[in-house]
Amino acid sequence: MSLLSDRLADLPAPDEAARAETRSRADSVLRPAGALAWLDDIAVWKAGWQRTPTPTVSHPAALVFAGDHGVAAAGVSSYPSDVTAAMLDATREGRATINAFADAAGATVTAVDVGVGRPTADMRHEPALTAERFDEITATAFAAVDDLDTDLLVLGELGIGNTTAAAAIAAAFAGGDATVWVGRGTGIDDAGLDRKRSAVQESLRRIAGVVDPLEILREVGGSELVGMAAAAVAARHRSIPIILDGYICTAAVLPLHVAEPTALDHCVAGHCSAEPGHRLLLDRLEKRPLLDLDMRLGEGSGGMAALPLVKLACAGVVGVATFDEWFGPAV
Amino acid sequence: MSLLSDRLADLPAPDEAARAETRSRADSVLRPAGALAWLDDIAVWKAGWQRTPTPTVSHPAALVFAGDHGVAAAGVSSYPSDVTAAMLDATREGRATINAFADAAGATVTAVDVGVGRPTADMRHEPALTAERFDEITATAFAAVDDLDTDLLVLGELGIGNTTAAAAIAAAFAGGDATVWVGRGTGIDDAGLDRKRSAVQESLRRIAGVVDPLEILREVGGSELVGMAAAAVAARHRSIPIILDGYICTAAVLPLHVAEPTALDHCVAGHCSAEPGHRLLLDRLEKRPLLDLDMRLGEGSGGMAALPLVKLACAGVVGVATFDEWFGPAV
Repeated sequence: MSLLSDRLADLPAPDEAARAETRSRADSVLRPAGALAWLDDIAVWKAGWQRTPTPTVSHPAALVFAGDHGVAAAGVSSYPSDVTAAMLDATREGRATINAFADAAGATVTAVDVGVGRPTADMRHEPALTAERFDEITATAFAAVDDLDTDLLVLGELGIGNTTAAAAIAAAFAGGDATVWVGRGTGIDDAGLDRKRSAVQESLRRIAGVVDPLEILREVGGSELVGMAAAAVAARHRSIPIILDGYICTAAVLPLHVAEPTALDHCVAGHCSAEPGHRLLLDRLEKRPLLDLDMRLGEGSGGMAALPLVKLACAGVVGVATFDEWFGPAV
Repeated sequence: MSLLSDRLADLPAPDEAARAETRSRADSVLRPAGALAWLDDIAVWKAGWQRTPTPTVSHPAALVFAGDHGVAAAGVSSYPSDVTAAMLDATREGRATINAFADAAGATVTAVDVGVGRPTADMRHEPALTAERFDEITATAFAAVDDLDTDLLVLGELGIGNTTAAAAIAAAFAGGDATVWVGRGTGIDDAGLDRKRSAVQESLRRIAGVVDPLEILREVGGSELVGMAAAAVAARHRSIPIILDGYICTAAVLPLHVAEPTALDHCVAGHCSAEPGHRLLLDRLEKRPLLDLDMRLGEGSGGMAALPLVKLACAGVVGVATFDEWFGPAV
């Protein structure tokens, strides 16, 4: 047992009364029935997990977890590992893409260092994280969520080498040809792509006997991936709905879904990235992405780009007159 | 000649220097080259038409044109014509969906009455608009754009019966089977769909000899469609980029594109609606929609839903540090 598995075993269900009331209002406002289609469903989803019949996005936030990866030594990225620290600094100084997006969307950004300059072990040869580190990161992520005052949370990450970890997680659950899960990440060349595929295959051979989903996350994940998974669980317990970001974020929370099929019901997919494995993962999770714009950045940027849509979806139910309010009650 | 054809003959080109400077910055900021893909292109597009190397969305606006349709007498809508006036009132009072969306996106909404309670003629039997009314509506739309202080404009509409007009315009330019352009609009039943198809076919037979694109708009369009087309041209002259809304909006500006292939270069497609003809029209215009969410409301709602993406795209270039700014110039 881990801190994370404990909290995962005790997940709250959505507020069905809030859902029903929001659905009823969505069906009563001044527009043809179903005209907003999926956006009405998003408002109902938000109501259920925010636990209010008047869902709103008034103080959105992003948590960006950052960590380094031992497997980067295998030459799986076009950037050196010290770029993680540089981007963490830029994010904390408000100069990265996620900061600009968050400013435009009216959201805050909190960067959480769970392993920058303290890389995971090389997953080709040993578990990426010890059980103790896994619990330590979980506790940090829980505390980061506890420190937030938010009604909608975007999860993001920074970590050179982390598309390799994401591919290993996805492949571990999918079986079959591991190489379909390996893409170019930040833009690696053909030789690097070969090294990346080999690193994933080697890691999977090492963990062939591991079946527990959270153990797979510990074996071939990374500190920022564990941070995102733990934050997703913590947010569920605090009635904070989540927008998932791209491939790495989605891979990080996949083990939660495998362990408990309802574990990601409070999460929407913000976008589908250009990393080929992402669309496959979203299909696996039966999550339709709000956006499909070929983005491939991470940092939570794709989730943040989708955030205004959730805000509009809520406003489209809460902020519009009903037929009765506008015309008077039908007699 | 009409007021609209005069202004259409004299369209400005984009600011290439602003485009080049924005592209250069997009390629220099703290992220892997191309990581934001299309959003960088949107920022460059915005720079070119806003005519500034620092494109921003700081005071966005929507213009919602409203008008009634003589062809509504053919039973082509599931709502009576007086719903147009009611929705115009609701929009002016800030109680419609477009108002709630605009509030959430930080935009203003201006409703422009170009023919509510003053329906077009029944296009099955005579031209929807006289040449005088066409010019009058054009002048009203030009004035509405002149009254705006905005850096990004969403065009929208209200008008019971106007998907029939949109289908007639689209079919007039496409040739072939007119019925592929006819959808259910606000949700008409099968019998109504048959009446709608017949109305479109009858209208097209009547205008079989008309070839001038703006004349087709006058013959089978509607006052709010002419208003949107005229506003699109006026905005081009005032360096205001545009987000198009759904099927009706896109059909309204199609004649501009047929008359002058570059006429819509300052417009992006906000979304693809559930009305089947919309995707075909967007393909014809070679415009990829920012959103694809099955919305089918009008009012400018789909364009407004996409507006935050343009804002984020600009912020993602203007508001992010370059590598040189962050690390110092390379030696």
